[in-house]
Amino acid sequence: MIRAELVVRNLREVVTLREGPRPRVGDAMRELSIVDRGAVAVDRGRVAWVGAERALRSAVRLRAGGGVHDGAGGVLLPGWVDAHTHVLFAGNRAFELPLKVAGVSYAEIAARGGGLYATVRATRSATDAELLDSAARRVRAMRASGTTALEVKSGYALDHAGELRLLRLIPRLARRTGLPLVPTYLGAHAVAPEFRGRPDAYVDAVVRRTLPAVSRAGLARFCDVFCEPGFFTVRQSERILRAAARLGLGLKVHADEFVLSGGARLAARLGAQSADHLLAAAPDDRERLAAAGVTAVLLPVTAFALGGARRAPAREMVDAGVPVALGSDCSPNSWVESMPVVLAQAVHGGRMTPAEAITAATVNAAHASGLEGAGTVAVGRSADFAVYPVGSATEIGYRFDVRPTAVYRQGKSVSSA
Amino acid sequence: MIRAELVVRNLREVVTLREGPRPRVGDAMRELSIVDRGAVAVDRGRVAWVGAERALRSAVRLRAGGGVHDGAGGVLLPGWVDAHTHVLFAGNRAFELPLKVAGVSYAEIAARGGGLYATVRATRSATDAELLDSAARRVRAMRASGTTALEVKSGYALDHAGELRLLRLIPRLARRTGLPLVPTYLGAHAVAPEFRGRPDAYVDAVVRRTLPAVSRAGLARFCDVFCEPGFFTVRQSERILRAAARLGLGLKVHADEFVLSGGARLAARLGAQSADHLLAAAPDDRERLAAAGVTAVLLPVTAFALGGARRAPAREMVDAGVPVALGSDCSPNSWVESMPVVLAQAVHGGRMTPAEAITAATVNAAHASGLEGAGTVAVGRSADFAVYPVGSATEIGYRFDVRPTAVYRQGKSVSSA
Repeated sequence: MIRAELVVRNLREVVTLREGPRPRVGDAMRELSIVDRGAVAVDRGRVAWVGAERALRSAVRLRAGGGVHDGAGGVLLPGWVDAHTHVLFAGNRAFELPLKVAGVSYAEIAARGGGLYATVRATRSATDAELLDSAARRVRAMRASGTTALEVKSGYALDHAGELRLLRLIPRLARRTGLPLVPTYLGAHAVAPEFRGRPDAYVDAVVRRTLPAVSRAGLARFCDVFCEPGFFTVRQSERILRAAARLGLGLKVHADEFVLSGGARLAARLGAQSADHLLAAAPDDRERLAAAGVTAVLLPVTAFALGGARRAPAREMVDAGVPVALGSDCSPNSWVESMPVVLAQAVHGGRMTPAEAITAATVNAAHASGLEGAGTVAVGRSADFAVYPVGSATEIGYRFDVRPTAVYRQGKSVSSA
Repeated sequence: MIRAELVVRNLREVVTLREGPRPRVGDAMRELSIVDRGAVAVDRGRVAWVGAERALRSAVRLRAGGGVHDGAGGVLLPGWVDAHTHVLFAGNRAFELPLKVAGVSYAEIAARGGGLYATVRATRSATDAELLDSAARRVRAMRASGTTALEVKSGYALDHAGELRLLRLIPRLARRTGLPLVPTYLGAHAVAPEFRGRPDAYVDAVVRRTLPAVSRAGLARFCDVFCEPGFFTVRQSERILRAAARLGLGLKVHADEFVLSGGARLAARLGAQSADHLLAAAPDDRERLAAAGVTAVLLPVTAFALGGARRAPAREMVDAGVPVALGSDCSPNSWVESMPVVLAQAVHGGRMTPAEAITAATVNAAHASGLEGAGTVAVGRSADFAVYPVGSATEIGYRFDVRPTAVYRQGKSVSSA
């Protein structure tokens, strides 16, 4: 008999999403590995048993003082892994909307010293406590929407000391919220205002000073670069990423978001962990990403927030055999906390099926974030999952704003926002 | 001194949205009538006082046993009025998504006997209890997202007895959920399957049999028609709407959603209460709607769910001086319960400012629904409002998934979903 501290039962479906050594591609993205009328047993924070509820009684014994969660006929899924966030920032940019409404582009707003730089000013002048408080509110709201792990980028300080400060806050934010946070150094989010007009000098500072310090202190798992006209050229991006790789960091690229500028190509050439955004990527870039096994991290809410007719190219990437993951891109530019809202945008905007979107937001997002083993419900893995009041997992992504009735992290209920 | 059973204080902003005799147009849609650092007092279910918090103590005395709600520095807004829903249905249509993903249009899915007719089959075969239970779950989720009044259409039975049954369920749903629901007869949602190929005979049945019965029993406030190729022609729609007007019902038109077919023009000619959808309406239709004072009820989530590059023409309508209201269109085809999610789609997709979207989802939606007096926070009006954890009302619509921390209907907390 397996001993359990917690049993979750009365579930129409348990979505297990078997993990594999690589992110899923093509038809495998539609395989959710569902146990009909399933149940899950948890012990010591880990999944101890998964199976059909009719086998539960003969397989599992509840420990004294253990609990039973009645799923009320709903569906249990692994916690979401949010593969791309900028959740650590201060302030907000609601004031930009009249500009956006008038048709001013993000690049133009940034060029006028607004946009990203407005958030840099707010973030630099915020105290540690203010940053932690506001980011923790967002991460808790994510958690209440079913997210149990996320990537978090620096990039709203840009100067050496400020970037190190942001990266040092990430483990504190993880402790505060109880979620695993994967830190990414994104000093090359934009040229720091102190280096205005001297992008190569800023790249020098990133490569020679900040990156080595980040690496020495073990502050980041990945290095990311915003490769886009007005931000960093392919050549500058490559210089930073090659330096990061030499220091043992994984690589990510903000690639081809606004215009086709070679970011996806660069990610494929360097074998990056992921190429993110990709709204303007060329059809042959898909072949390159697929061949190199680079995960496309798509951010459908941001695509929508750009206005116009932009849609995240999810269908095209899946059909081309690129592993696709999803992220909220939660930031002052696309402030979304709920992954089910992101999935709906990926389905109705990016033309994924709900099953593909679920795979993209769990096992594939885990791979993109270096969190292998997350995004599944599997014996021995951390008991990170949520229960949704739906009759089938495919209603997530179909419906626009599904919310879980319960969220568990390491087998403990963490539902409240 | 004003006596109060409830005081809500510690609010950064109280958005009052002064009501007027007509829906707001143009620049007036940006005037939210905000009390900075405001407070609200409630007595006997109605707003008894609104003002600056510093004036609260000298103006209001709490009754014995009365309560104080600390708004935690958030923002209080009137409850949303959702001006267009099909919330009374059975089943779901997640199974259609692989078709949608493959590019099959809504009209084509309907023509194949799927789409709307699949929901008609499910709704006809559901018991009253099943319909009430599933609709009540949705309405409670809406309420937890800050909606305190909504319009509800029939239209998923189509046959005489079935449509009357749906309309009779609406007051029961209202009692069950405690929200005012405005019933709309939409027998002309599609040609009933029994009349396949004989649309004029179905229109006959609507006009001669069902409409008079609906009117006699006082079951509907409005009559609506789906005026679109493959559904009802302008001529058929006009026949139904004129009959409804003679019976004293208000008029609504599902107009120019897929193609420009004259629905908006018809709504203007008949002086309808609203013309809804309007994705394909012509520029001169905007002039017609503005001149006739017909409210454009826009449904930005549905526009998005149609795929392609569709956006609700909110900016264009506001700029043309058309009164604009918003609705969720909650249905199996665009299943969204949260009005803040709808507002975000209207802002980022339809290019409204947050203030315009808030006006559209409160006072203007109230006018579109015949609920004058709803959608405001005003002395003497029902105390229907919600508190949001944001620093400014304009963060709603800017952020994609804001949720209220508290919702009040007639001065009673109704927050839980």
